[in-house]
Amino acid sequence: MNEKKILVLHGPNLNLLGTRETDIYGNITLEALNQEIEEYAKKLNMILDIAQYNSESDIVAAIHSSAGIYIGIIINAAAFTHTSVAIRDAISAVSVPVIEVHLSNIYQRDSFRHHSMLASVCMGQITGFGKKSYLLALDFFKT
Amino acid sequence: MNEKKILVLHGPNLNLLGTRETDIYGNITLEALNQEIEEYAKKLNMILDIAQYNSESDIVAAIHSSAGIYIGIIINAAAFTHTSVAIRDAISAVSVPVIEVHLSNIYQRDSFRHHSMLASVCMGQITGFGKKSYLLALDFFKT
Amino acid sequence: MNEKKILVLHGPNLNLLGTRETDIYGNITLEALNQEIEEYAKKLNMILDIAQYNSESDIVAAIHSSAGIYIGIIINAAAFTHTSVAIRDAISAVSVPVIEVHLSNIYQRDSFRHHSMLASVCMGQITGFGKKSYLLALDFFKT
Amino acid sequence: MNEKKILVLHGPNLNLLGTRETDIYGNITLEALNQEIEEYAKKLNMILDIAQYNSESDIVAAIHSSAGIYIGIIINAAAFTHTSVAIRDAISAVSVPVIEVHLSNIYQRDSFRHHSMLASVCMGQITGFGKKSYLLALDFFKT
Amino acid sequence: MNEKKILVLHGPNLNLLGTRETDIYGNITLEALNQEIEEYAKKLNMILDIAQYNSESDIVAAIHSSAGIYIGIIINAAAFTHTSVAIRDAISAVSVPVIEVHLSNIYQRDSFRHHSMLASVCMGQITGFGKKSYLLALDFFKT
Amino acid sequence: MNEKKILVLHGPNLNLLGTRETDIYGNITLEALNQEIEEYAKKLNMILDIAQYNSESDIVAAIHSSAGIYIGIIINAAAFTHTSVAIRDAISAVSVPVIEVHLSNIYQRDSFRHHSMLASVCMGQITGFGKKSYLLALDFFKT
Amino acid sequence: MNEKKILVLHGPNLNLLGTRETDIYGNITLEALNQEIEEYAKKLNMILDIAQYNSESDIVAAIHSSAGIYIGIIINAAAFTHTSVAIRDAISAVSVPVIEVHLSNIYQRDSFRHHSMLASVCMGQITGFGKKSYLLALDFFKT
Amino acid sequence: MNEKKILVLHGPNLNLLGTRETDIYGNITLEALNQEIEEYAKKLNMILDIAQYNSESDIVAAIHSSAGIYIGIIINAAAFTHTSVAIRDAISAVSVPVIEVHLSNIYQRDSFRHHSMLASVCMGQITGFGKKSYLLALDFFKT
Amino acid sequence: MNEKKILVLHGPNLNLLGTRETDIYGNITLEALNQEIEEYAKKLNMILDIAQYNSESDIVAAIHSSAGIYIGIIINAAAFTHTSVAIRDAISAVSVPVIEVHLSNIYQRDSFRHHSMLASVCMGQITGFGKKSYLLALDFFKT
Amino acid sequence: MNEKKILVLHGPNLNLLGTRETDIYGNITLEALNQEIEEYAKKLNMILDIAQYNSESDIVAAIHSSAGIYIGIIINAAAFTHTSVAIRDAISAVSVPVIEVHLSNIYQRDSFRHHSMLASVCMGQITGFGKKSYLLALDFFKT
Amino acid sequence: MNEKKILVLHGPNLNLLGTRETDIYGNITLEALNQEIEEYAKKLNMILDIAQYNSESDIVAAIHSSAGIYIGIIINAAAFTHTSVAIRDAISAVSVPVIEVHLSNIYQRDSFRHHSMLASVCMGQITGFGKKSYLLALDFFKT
Amino acid sequence: MNEKKILVLHGPNLNLLGTRETDIYGNITLEALNQEIEEYAKKLNMILDIAQYNSESDIVAAIHSSAGIYIGIIINAAAFTHTSVAIRDAISAVSVPVIEVHLSNIYQRDSFRHHSMLASVCMGQITGFGKKSYLLALDFFKT
Repeated sequence: MNEKKILVLHGPNLNLLGTRETDIYGNITLEALNQEIEEYAKKLNMILDIAQYNSESDIVAAIHSSAGIYIGIIINAAAFTHTSVAIRDAISAVSVPVIEVHLSNIYQRDSFRHHSMLASVCMGQITGFGKKSYLLALDFFKT
Repeated sequence: MNEKKILVLHGPNLNLLGTRETDIYGNITLEALNQEIEEYAKKLNMILDIAQYNSESDIVAAIHSSAGIYIGIIINAAAFTHTSVAIRDAISAVSVPVIEVHLSNIYQRDSFRHHSMLASVCMGQITGFGKKSYLLALDFFKT
Repeated sequence: MNEKKILVLHGPNLNLLGTRETDIYGNITLEALNQEIEEYAKKLNMILDIAQYNSESDIVAAIHSSAGIYIGIIINAAAFTHTSVAIRDAISAVSVPVIEVHLSNIYQRDSFRHHSMLASVCMGQITGFGKKSYLLALDFFKT
Repeated sequence: MNEKKILVLHGPNLNLLGTRETDIYGNITLEALNQEIEEYAKKLNMILDIAQYNSESDIVAAIHSSAGIYIGIIINAAAFTHTSVAIRDAISAVSVPVIEVHLSNIYQRDSFRHHSMLASVCMGQITGFGKKSYLLALDFFKT
Repeated sequence: MNEKKILVLHGPNLNLLGTRETDIYGNITLEALNQEIEEYAKKLNMILDIAQYNSESDIVAAIHSSAGIYIGIIINAAAFTHTSVAIRDAISAVSVPVIEVHLSNIYQRDSFRHHSMLASVCMGQITGFGKKSYLLALDFFKT
Repeated sequence: MNEKKILVLHGPNLNLLGTRETDIYGNITLEALNQEIEEYAKKLNMILDIAQYNSESDIVAAIHSSAGIYIGIIINAAAFTHTSVAIRDAISAVSVPVIEVHLSNIYQRDSFRHHSMLASVCMGQITGFGKKSYLLALDFFKT
Repeated sequence: MNEKKILVLHGPNLNLLGTRETDIYGNITLEALNQEIEEYAKKLNMILDIAQYNSESDIVAAIHSSAGIYIGIIINAAAFTHTSVAIRDAISAVSVPVIEVHLSNIYQRDSFRHHSMLASVCMGQITGFGKKSYLLALDFFKT
Repeated sequence: MNEKKILVLHGPNLNLLGTRETDIYGNITLEALNQEIEEYAKKLNMILDIAQYNSESDIVAAIHSSAGIYIGIIINAAAFTHTSVAIRDAISAVSVPVIEVHLSNIYQRDSFRHHSMLASVCMGQITGFGKKSYLLALDFFKT
Repeated sequence: MNEKKILVLHGPNLNLLGTRETDIYGNITLEALNQEIEEYAKKLNMILDIAQYNSESDIVAAIHSSAGIYIGIIINAAAFTHTSVAIRDAISAVSVPVIEVHLSNIYQRDSFRHHSMLASVCMGQITGFGKKSYLLALDFFKT
Repeated sequence: MNEKKILVLHGPNLNLLGTRETDIYGNITLEALNQEIEEYAKKLNMILDIAQYNSESDIVAAIHSSAGIYIGIIINAAAFTHTSVAIRDAISAVSVPVIEVHLSNIYQRDSFRHHSMLASVCMGQITGFGKKSYLLALDFFKT
Repeated sequence: MNEKKILVLHGPNLNLLGTRETDIYGNITLEALNQEIEEYAKKLNMILDIAQYNSESDIVAAIHSSAGIYIGIIINAAAFTHTSVAIRDAISAVSVPVIEVHLSNIYQRDSFRHHSMLASVCMGQITGFGKKSYLLALDFFKT
Repeated sequence: MNEKKILVLHGPNLNLLGTRETDIYGNITLEALNQEIEEYAKKLNMILDIAQYNSESDIVAAIHSSAGIYIGIIINAAAFTHTSVAIRDAISAVSVPVIEVHLSNIYQRDSFRHHSMLASVCMGQITGFGKKSYLLALDFFKT
């Protein structure tokens, strides 16, 4: 296992970042966000794989195939955060530590977004810091 | 954008229409339903794209790619009506007006079908009129 | 029974339409709304009786006396939508098909407005299309 | 608009005041209460119209006709406090400021009386001071 | 006070008895029901006043005017059973004993019909015996 | 089957009647109550079997053995009213019509006493008339 | 301990099987059911003790005395499934593995039957297969 | 009444004490527990009757027959603590003061064990002190 | 239709069986499990098709295509058990009898796993018997 | 006791008045508010002690020491309104009448602010009138 | 650590004991109560420190400083019983066994007093015995 | 305002860190934790003020006095996270951005710890990373 390799997973609709609900998510596009994450990782001597999926089963599969390859997963499961037992079970099933991140402060939004199906099986949660939510998660893995 | 182009989306299990729970949904098949919708649209000088998906991510993708192409979406999300935050977020993310339709009166069925995850992000909802639910939605877009 | 006669019932406070909460209901007055409904009905060769009541018992009485006269009722019960078992029972008691309509999208408003006491005894519900909610209901009855 | 004119509305069953549940409401009759309110208003150079209705629609109508005539409404909606969306909507519909008053402390009574359908659309609420609840409301309007 | 005088109150939609939902309420009309109640009362040497109202405020008023005239009230409040705080307060306000009756067994119907706003302020409740629910209430008052 | 034979079942703690919580149940003992019921039945030419059980299974057994012997059962299940699925199932299992009675008005007492596990499988319920609750039930069976 | 000895416990009202609610439970009597279970057990070289109790404490006692005698218990606790903490505690108290069975699919019936007080202390649950629910439980114990 | 006589009641499954769930209840058997209680009572010059019942009706009967004989009852109703309205009513029905005791701390166990049906009709509750829960209850009665 | 052909469907994450949460699911891999199921089926003269899917829509599609081919479906929907209305609707839509199985006792796990969206539309449920849950389901279909 | 002496208590964060959330609370500072209250009291010949505390125990202590000194307390408990059983108990413990006031209409804000722990032990509540909420409370005490 | 030293903590408002709500708490003052506790402790050869605090943080601090000094803590947290996570965490944080006591039977009072935030982290709870609740707690520590 | 100055606030019981529930919080003492935070801040050229309070009002006061001094606050409110409206209001009242941190993953603990009263008024939340939760919060403020 490469001790510096991290998997970054973006959930459904995040491909529209920067074009969608910019009052909540800001103007940054997914490409720009990924570039910032990549650059920050490079400074920390980390290697990233980044993927965005609209499909729950693709995320489940990505988590399954992470074992033995990554030292950690950073996941913004977006809509699936609140509904997916399958992703929860996938996280429980692999031994890779997972950090749940959110761009927006989910506790300031619809009440159904206040509950995360994933939080209790992740190592921790970072929510509300925009793109920095991802960067702080990288910081965690840096040592 | 073609000012007469409408996207009609059928959700999971609707491919079995006419063979499934005919006491609730009637004997019309999806092909027949689509044909009626097409004919009605033609009378209104509208152009339709119609698709049926059993997969949540396919519906999300269809909504994503609607921007700039359609003047409106008519969606019968079926089972996903009650569970999908991802489809809800996709509707919020695009600027195309969306009408939620249902063949049956969902308020006469299981209590978990009384709540729609989509209703509050759609323009409106038409429920209980059988195939006419779709036709009334077309009527709305006609002017 | 006149096969073209429809009863349109407006519930409490709708007499103030156009002067009241115009951000929700728009600037159209009840008179103007009724005129548009009338004109649309005329095009469809339908005859309408339209009434507005602030009293629950007046609406109950109007429904009672509809049997044998109208082929359908279009009701916007406004506030009574969420509280009236009496109107619900009146609808159940007569054999005339009833369509529930709402000007605004009730699923975008106070949570107590998300539940309709009437929906499960009506044929169907059309909500969120402004004045067109009524016109679509007429469309339903046109054939 | 007369800048000193106030409408006082008493809800259902208040006509029985002084004869009904005197342990809760005291021995004062509605006539005596109205006289005290009138006298107090006179001292404040205010002009009152006072009415008691057992019918929800009468209260709705009274609120409707208040616009442009009164600088404020004082309402003790009694039983309707807890059930009437129609009165709530009437209050929202007119631009006259409304004060909700209660003779008894509704928070010391049946739990279904702890919730007011009206409170959030009124300017404020005064509860538990017996006849003085009305007088304090007049005090508010005096300047 | 006439020690044999009883007031019988029928609530909303009961005027349609015998024509409405006959699977639940049977084929007897309100006139026939009233006649049977009258005859039974005559055998018991009782004098009845019987009224049917679709309006909540009419029922409130009828209860108000019962004091000093009737030794008891038999009320089938129908839909208002489940929603009316105003009728509840009217019953509390007068000193006449009130018996709540129902034709059908309300505990076998919609869950919102399982709760009575009136039961705890009435002397007792008789439910489920068809027309006999009224006759048994008369039996109670006979001595 | 003897067309005049009725089974009266008293539930747990009713053997203490007249000595227990007399503010709720009055001073009449079970013996005195039974005597009054017997005498009333005699007037109606009915034959009664009366039993009191503190044990749920004894009540279940009594109901089981009622088939083909009694034309009806009058049951005051007392505490078991609110908890016993077994008695409910026994009532459903036999074809004898059952009337649920209560001495006190259960809707004026602890909230857990407001719900009856038995009501929806009984023919009807008579509650709050003291000893007369039983007599009214006999009245029902008299014709 | 006889490694082939199984205790089969039937709960309240099952003695009426075949005569009771045959639309739910079918026409088979308890005697016939027991005979089928016995015959099936014989084929599997198992020895059964079968008992039916209407009394919760009899079931508790039967479970208590099972230790060291039976290799397993098959229990259809019927009504007690949903209410009995005592049977639950008895199952927890003995070291004999217990299988919960149901003739009907409890998830298709009244909502209070969807929850089992016993399920979480049993080894497993088999529900909805009619008499085969018992036979499948025997199959489990066969090796 | 013997001013030193106390009734100690053990509820269902407590006969298995010391053999059952020893992590929760410890290794002491019911016989040993009873002996310790007896000896402690002797020191306090008290006379005890001790009984264990698995049957709810036996406990009800024991409470019924306590009046005029015992100055107090100490009850560990075990499973019935959480479900029995019948035992609650029996306690309310007799004038003997009752202390509810529990070996384990019920607030550290399953959530359905956090609520006692008996607590509000007992004099007080002592929970969590193992065998000492009984001894402290004796201490209370000593003067 | 081949009267011996059964479809076995494994839901999401079950591909990790034997490597994942072995305290809950044991050490058996999916391959080994499938082999045991196959061998058992062979003994019963049954023919199996077995598939595992992480995607909800794949499971929906598999159920759709089962009609006319299989005499029964055995489904362990894993995470989807608790969330999928789409699979529920697919089961309702086809006429093939479906048995819901679970390896672990879902009633001993997180509270959100106690509720199955599928149970009420399946023929029955077998839960908690490890690999034997599947074998018992085969036993059911054997005659 | 000085019959004109009133204690005014301001709760936590009210020291920031005028600088904090001015859209809700307005621009008036606590000093200015206190000065207005003082001046108004002077006109009514009342003597005030005014204090602001961020600490729950300071408020409890202030209420404790009010007995025999003040004829009334006016409390705006701010955040503690919704959480403090200790302040509630302090109010119950002293015989001084207490009026609960709020600057803003708490029924228009977060749902957790709709419930007051204090309301049912206060004489009454005045909410939503800005600084006038305090002045109206003084009016109440003036005679 | 002195093996006989016990800390007794009284929570908010208990300083008013004997003057406050004497129907609930009796006429004994805190001083008198403390004297009785002291005398009883002396008989048991125990040394007490007794303190009363209206401040949650004072109680937290007192618990913090108990480690290594006292063999046990007896706490009547009064109002904080139902609201304080901080005191709960303090109890969890120290290794001193804590007994929760209450003068009154909290299960006979307001429903919000039925739940204790502390019970599940204390050794046990003694509630409803007036001053004896404290003495029984001392009894527990005596050996 | 010093653009590098940060206030770190530790809530109740955190002074016991390293000695308390070490399975949850680890062996690090508060002193050691503070030293690590200080050192990390120094590397980032930040200046810290760090304080620990067991008192809610001390935390409120510290937040009040932060305006104009600090560019940010990092708060681990511990127990107060779940109960304190006062701290929530203090955070809303000042314009300093606040980050909520937790050592442990609060979503893996008691259900009452899953809800934060503070989250929706903070900028963001970082939970579950042990001491690194604080360091990541510093990282956020570093640019």
